[in-house]
Amino acid sequence: MATIQEVAKYAGVSVATVSRVINTPDKVKKHTQFKVENAIKELNYEPSVLGRSLRTSQSKLLLVLLPNVSNPFYAKIINGIQDKAIAFGYNILLCETDSDPDREVIYFNMIKNKLADGIISMDPTVNKKKLIELSNEYPIVQCSEYTKDKTLPFVTIDSKQAAYQAVKHLIKLGHKKIGLINFDKKFLYASERYSGYEKALKEFNLEITDDWIYNTKHLNFESGQQAMRVLLDQIDRPSAVFAVSDVLAVGALKELHIKQLGVPEEMALIGFDNIEFSNVVYPPLTTVAQPMYEMGAISAQMLMSKIKGEEVESRFLEHQLIIRETT
Amino acid sequence: MATIQEVAKYAGVSVATVSRVINTPDKVKKHTQFKVENAIKELNYEPSVLGRSLRTSQSKLLLVLLPNVSNPFYAKIINGIQDKAIAFGYNILLCETDSDPDREVIYFNMIKNKLADGIISMDPTVNKKKLIELSNEYPIVQCSEYTKDKTLPFVTIDSKQAAYQAVKHLIKLGHKKIGLINFDKKFLYASERYSGYEKALKEFNLEITDDWIYNTKHLNFESGQQAMRVLLDQIDRPSAVFAVSDVLAVGALKELHIKQLGVPEEMALIGFDNIEFSNVVYPPLTTVAQPMYEMGAISAQMLMSKIKGEEVESRFLEHQLIIRETT
Repeated sequence: MATIQEVAKYAGVSVATVSRVINTPDKVKKHTQFKVENAIKELNYEPSVLGRSLRTSQSKLLLVLLPNVSNPFYAKIINGIQDKAIAFGYNILLCETDSDPDREVIYFNMIKNKLADGIISMDPTVNKKKLIELSNEYPIVQCSEYTKDKTLPFVTIDSKQAAYQAVKHLIKLGHKKIGLINFDKKFLYASERYSGYEKALKEFNLEITDDWIYNTKHLNFESGQQAMRVLLDQIDRPSAVFAVSDVLAVGALKELHIKQLGVPEEMALIGFDNIEFSNVVYPPLTTVAQPMYEMGAISAQMLMSKIKGEEVESRFLEHQLIIRETT
Repeated sequence: MATIQEVAKYAGVSVATVSRVINTPDKVKKHTQFKVENAIKELNYEPSVLGRSLRTSQSKLLLVLLPNVSNPFYAKIINGIQDKAIAFGYNILLCETDSDPDREVIYFNMIKNKLADGIISMDPTVNKKKLIELSNEYPIVQCSEYTKDKTLPFVTIDSKQAAYQAVKHLIKLGHKKIGLINFDKKFLYASERYSGYEKALKEFNLEITDDWIYNTKHLNFESGQQAMRVLLDQIDRPSAVFAVSDVLAVGALKELHIKQLGVPEEMALIGFDNIEFSNVVYPPLTTVAQPMYEMGAISAQMLMSKIKGEEVESRFLEHQLIIRETT
């Protein structure tokens, strides 16, 4: 690969001029710019990202923190982030934190060292204190997640209201015994979805039965299946179940197939998220759609504004109940 | 955050000594090391990744190139890469290339600028010429993919043999009319899986019917569903179908549900990969398992060896036919 010196020599200008053409082209005369750009092309010169980063403080890279790439919920959000970022001339790096603080430090340091220009965090277990501290100096937004004190700008949905509507849909269909498959309530969205479930049951004077609520430790198919197994094992069991994520609901559906129970006749089921799978399983899953692509795109847009030093406003986006064949 | 100067002052040593403790601790006396480490801890000092990178030429970051995070095939491989990388003190950054050469350049430049120590490429559409060129100077291995000339070290499976076994399994069950849902044959693995399909049919004197072969343009559920729709539309249609990826097979299964065809009685189906979802759909999918986690772990191990300047040998891993309920 050609060096900047070779480009300067070829173009008959100084190294400083080549650098100016690359970093501040509007400060260079048109014909000089032309000569240098021609030399860059002829010699196939690629300006060093690192060099450029140190000069302009812009790496044109965004970090996206997520706990786990195997959760399909994130795939569509990432598409949204990516499309918007690219439209602004940015690329993204996906950082799987696996909820490990040591790994977060690595990514936080990339920001401090200007190897990346900003962070979109989708990690519910991220070190919030450190993230907020960092956000005083560096552009950071949260996507899907948010902190209760709303210190960091975020884009998300109203989880409580969405869960309320999902459960109300089951009640309107005549169900009186409604189970809940939830995730660990230490996560804000899980506790909010619980509140929505509770609100709907109370409103219609239905009893909240501890035995019909199962909190999983993991967010995967097996946990959903295990939860449904436990709910089905009871003598007095629910006739419908609300699962706070499609991944859990799809696992629960597998257990219903194994037990050869008719869905929705013997057990109705509703999920949350509207991941692609939810419409591929049989029968297709009723669910609450999150606007995942839009969430991603808007969070990227917000981050761009933060990078430019503009004020941004947090947003709750609309969810949507999608009725398919499990209810 | 504390600076290296503050750490030096606190420990009563020079900045150079602090740097030595961080980068080459075995060259520093034990009690000096202790003093400096104590100061680092007390002042909560985090050595700059960039600074460290420039001094030691080691970023302790690996890049993983993949076309698309929404394909669940990659999730398990990434787990394997990650676990092994972490065991060696490395972190990984996932780079979604979306098969766009401009984006590859960004990631290639990170290597050139020593912002990362090596690349694991899982992208079938990556610019192979550039990747091979780069591999003369930087540690690069391929995972799941490989080039025909085998210039780059790789870890993968024998796709032709695996496809041959899958189709032979259908033949042994008595099927004589066997369809194929394949991906674009410009991809090496797709053309190899076609060869395996062809080999099995020829061996048993079964006819290869163009109308029973459908090559999809995309690797997603819809494409699989669309492919099955076309195969079912024929008057003389196959009684069994081999799909070269579980994602395509799961989409095909959805179409069978819609058409209310009994699986496997009216149509047998076999997939490829053994993604988690293949065992969650109903009925659970017969498939050819790739050792995804192992592939990831071995590719990371190979990259570590390359980084240390050791020779590495490419490997074909064992696949496994997993018979479930769709055949």
